[in-house]
Amino acid sequence: MIERIAILGTGLLGTSAGLALRAAGFRGSIVGWNRGAEGARVALDAGAIDSVAADPLRAARASDVTLLCVPIYATLDFMEKLACVLGSEHMVTDVGSTKRLISEAAGRLFNRRDRAAFLPGHPMAGKERGGAALGDAELFRGAVWLFTDDPAAERSAHSAELVKGWREWVVAMGSKTIDLDPVRHDELVAWVSHLPQFLATALSALLEDEVGDAPELKDVGGRGLREMTRLGASPYSMWRDIAYTNTAAVDAALQALEQRLAHLRENLRTPELRDEFERANRFRKE
Amino acid sequence: MIERIAILGTGLLGTSAGLALRAAGFRGSIVGWNRGAEGARVALDAGAIDSVAADPLRAARASDVTLLCVPIYATLDFMEKLACVLGSEHMVTDVGSTKRLISEAAGRLFNRRDRAAFLPGHPMAGKERGGAALGDAELFRGAVWLFTDDPAAERSAHSAELVKGWREWVVAMGSKTIDLDPVRHDELVAWVSHLPQFLATALSALLEDEVGDAPELKDVGGRGLREMTRLGASPYSMWRDIAYTNTAAVDAALQALEQRLAHLRENLRTPELRDEFERANRFRKE
Repeated sequence: MIERIAILGTGLLGTSAGLALRAAGFRGSIVGWNRGAEGARVALDAGAIDSVAADPLRAARASDVTLLCVPIYATLDFMEKLACVLGSEHMVTDVGSTKRLISEAAGRLFNRRDRAAFLPGHPMAGKERGGAALGDAELFRGAVWLFTDDPAAERSAHSAELVKGWREWVVAMGSKTIDLDPVRHDELVAWVSHLPQFLATALSALLEDEVGDAPELKDVGGRGLREMTRLGASPYSMWRDIAYTNTAAVDAALQALEQRLAHLRENLRTPELRDEFERANRFRKE
Repeated sequence: MIERIAILGTGLLGTSAGLALRAAGFRGSIVGWNRGAEGARVALDAGAIDSVAADPLRAARASDVTLLCVPIYATLDFMEKLACVLGSEHMVTDVGSTKRLISEAAGRLFNRRDRAAFLPGHPMAGKERGGAALGDAELFRGAVWLFTDDPAAERSAHSAELVKGWREWVVAMGSKTIDLDPVRHDELVAWVSHLPQFLATALSALLEDEVGDAPELKDVGGRGLREMTRLGASPYSMWRDIAYTNTAAVDAALQALEQRLAHLRENLRTPELRDEFERANRFRKE
């Protein structure tokens, strides 16, 4: 029953979603909008979208489903604007990396019988570099796509069907869906996503200071070093909003890791080092 | 001129070296010894060695080159024993991950005209799990193989030729060789190899405590989390010796990272976060 989709933001995720929808057999229309014209053109040329919209709000009004693929604060801005122009025949969803603020806004602005539905979403997929040119129909295959929907959301029969339909397309794109409370979501991703990112950034920045002037020495580290610093290429533009909207949970995770590193450092020559290796081995046990 | 090679320790590195030598065209004999009989049998079955030696010292005496592929303290033990039974017609080399103690022992026990030559070596290659069964003829291709030879080493013409010949086989196995001072080596690998390992161990151990009871949540982290914790599977048995023989340099690197994480944590909402991301981006610049 979803026939028209608007993708607002045709960067890596938006372009990949368009490509993945097509690969999964979506035959309706996909209109795209992007803040920079170049990204929209690349998505159009790649076949991720059928047409480029000049006005994102008008494109959303003309669609059944609007997929927001922009940074978190831009998502919150769009939510304010879309709430005024959409109605019970519409559904909006997003891909933002933190969900507490977005879920609060969804409850305040959407999810009543006479308004559009909003389904907060977060695909755990990405690359260390962004942009439409890296768009990939397979990006979501095997990934977890988290939803933090409000069980108390009130929806028209029509918009409830759109929500159900979108969940089915997410599965068709190859993702496994998991439903979580938004606060629990933000705590969980602080551990399994944000902590690894900020750690890779800190390690890469430190090594840039220590060995950055001798690039041949980077080769010495081999695969281990390459993997541990790959996320160091991630752009500030995306992570700024995450740091701002999940500060307390990220702070707690970073502080716990600092303490863990100090503990390991103080035990480089004691049997406690064995225990830490064994705990780590358990985490990686297949 | 190298016709007979003894590989003492047919774990991952020893078995891979035998396979890589064969793949590079080495036609002489390769005898293997391993502390556990099973590892030697697997290496023999894989074709990494031609025969299994009962007595490692006798196997070394009967060979031109002895390659030590055992943990660091076992390497130091073998060096003491081999120095008594080998002479100027022999050469010994190793793959130990720290080089200061081994290079000191080489100067004390080897590298005089009437003694065997010792070339301290360290291939920057490995996997997060060890064992002969994972042996791989391609393990050293594209890797850096470090040497910390003593420019003042005194060698017979014969053993000097063996050293030269071994360096050529290392290149033939696909590695790029770099020569370093042993103290500089240990400082460098503390940054680019040991720090990433202990960091992956600390992160994996922390996450085992935080989310280890909910294995489905590991999937949420996706590729980034998998990469950042892959080295968490590394065995204590190997890293214990590294922690003991490079304690000061590892301690300094860990402490620097703790400070860096604290700095990042204190700046989650300041423009300094942008600077850290930009420094990290520079480290990963192609």
